[in-house]
Amino acid sequence: MKLARFIADDGERIGAVREDGIVALDTGLDRADDMIALIERWPHESARLQRQAQEGRAVPLARVRLLAPIERPGKIMAIGLNYADHIAETGMDKPERQLWFAKMGNTVNGPRDPVQVPRVSAKVDYEVELVAVIGQGGRHIRAEEAPARVFGYCVGNDVSVRDWQMQTSQWVLGKSFDGHAPFGPWIVTADELPDPHRLDIRCLVNGELRQSSNTRHLVFNVWDQLVHLSQAMTLRAGDLLFTGTPGGVAAAMRPPAWLRAGDVVRCEIEGIGALENPFVDE
Amino acid sequence: MKLARFIADDGERIGAVREDGIVALDTGLDRADDMIALIERWPHESARLQRQAQEGRAVPLARVRLLAPIERPGKIMAIGLNYADHIAETGMDKPERQLWFAKMGNTVNGPRDPVQVPRVSAKVDYEVELVAVIGQGGRHIRAEEAPARVFGYCVGNDVSVRDWQMQTSQWVLGKSFDGHAPFGPWIVTADELPDPHRLDIRCLVNGELRQSSNTRHLVFNVWDQLVHLSQAMTLRAGDLLFTGTPGGVAAAMRPPAWLRAGDVVRCEIEGIGALENPFVDE
Repeated sequence: MKLARFIADDGERIGAVREDGIVALDTGLDRADDMIALIERWPHESARLQRQAQEGRAVPLARVRLLAPIERPGKIMAIGLNYADHIAETGMDKPERQLWFAKMGNTVNGPRDPVQVPRVSAKVDYEVELVAVIGQGGRHIRAEEAPARVFGYCVGNDVSVRDWQMQTSQWVLGKSFDGHAPFGPWIVTADELPDPHRLDIRCLVNGELRQSSNTRHLVFNVWDQLVHLSQAMTLRAGDLLFTGTPGGVAAAMRPPAWLRAGDVVRCEIEGIGALENPFVDE
Repeated sequence: MKLARFIADDGERIGAVREDGIVALDTGLDRADDMIALIERWPHESARLQRQAQEGRAVPLARVRLLAPIERPGKIMAIGLNYADHIAETGMDKPERQLWFAKMGNTVNGPRDPVQVPRVSAKVDYEVELVAVIGQGGRHIRAEEAPARVFGYCVGNDVSVRDWQMQTSQWVLGKSFDGHAPFGPWIVTADELPDPHRLDIRCLVNGELRQSSNTRHLVFNVWDQLVHLSQAMTLRAGDLLFTGTPGGVAAAMRPPAWLRAGDVVRCEIEGIGALENPFVDE
């Protein structure tokens, strides 16, 4: 199923996306848009909600505003230097261990919403990424258990302010400007994408192809990532893993083609869908 | 006022700490222990709650279990290399810019609760820190506005797994093991600590003094920190800033005196109070 958050006539809701539009679901939750609670209850609710999704009346997608599928993820972890061509273009060494950083909660943004070029920088970059949404989670997850611990997948744009990212040894501030993690456009549940490691992934700026690869080129795959992270931290429903970006970022172009107000960045992954965010001045 | 979260006979509550114990407050919130909502409403509620704190019946502190003052901070940001003696002992250069990293939400822990020595490492270290709790927050905060944007202060222990912190360029995983950010024991509201930059700060392991300094030695002070962070991110009520640790960490001892199960780490700051966490094996 494709699960989205959107603004309906009666407020923020969770809906199922079909060919002909979006069907608002009666989740039975205290808050009609609480995706984390829905993920936690999914094993008990999915059959009922599947029926609703099939039988309900759809509203065309063009008539709704899609929101970030999860409003407040418990954590957003992101892995760096995880496609060979991106490692080469940065001039950095291939990491021997998984290289994790964080994007803070203030970065959450919708799949069609504006993204700010901040006042304090003109070096803003895109990074299309497959995003894994944790389901059952846990600690010390073994590789063979990992597929069952992922609830589903989104497309993400790990927007990066390069001068702030590199002004100290730690990247987190340059990765955590307000609204710099648009993701969505919905969560595709894992049953529809049993192998997340064979998906075409692309980023276009104003229609010009900048990044084009396939998730089979991930250095550390999604299962490796759950195993490693969960040695340190308990993964929980709704946590997001940004799984790395392929080559083609603006910082590696000569000269760098930084994003500017007026640009539109489209990030798309086979079998999931596309983000399309206009960039605007803060 | 000193605001704590604790377990009362009727569940988790917010209380005011006096000389003779803790008084459960009737906050009027949907959730009796929602400290972030209380911080947001504080300007309208503080007079009423002050009266309750003075007139209510206190329970001795020894009879309650104190919880982390904020259950789910929106963000936990922490600054590295921010006392001259700690910079010297690490052998690193003094940063020209503020060096920020993050501790993820799974690190939250109570002021008296056990902290785990994880299965995957034996190189666990303490770092006593003054923690600023954001009140009104905002973006692009100016230095002269900063004092009014802080709600209050806690003591924090930025527990650090040194081998994981240093296994890649990014520190966040080594700083984010489950339960590795005990803080509290309560929030002292800013009106009781108008100058946070003249407080003695100490850490003792099994009664042995390891860190002893004063917050006047911060390289970048609390106001500088709000100014810098808020250029990138909107600060919100209940966000935590771990403001840096002085010299004396285990990693700098010869040989390093890593924490082990059975150790008790006491972190204390003048005018606030003390954490006292036993370390246990995961």
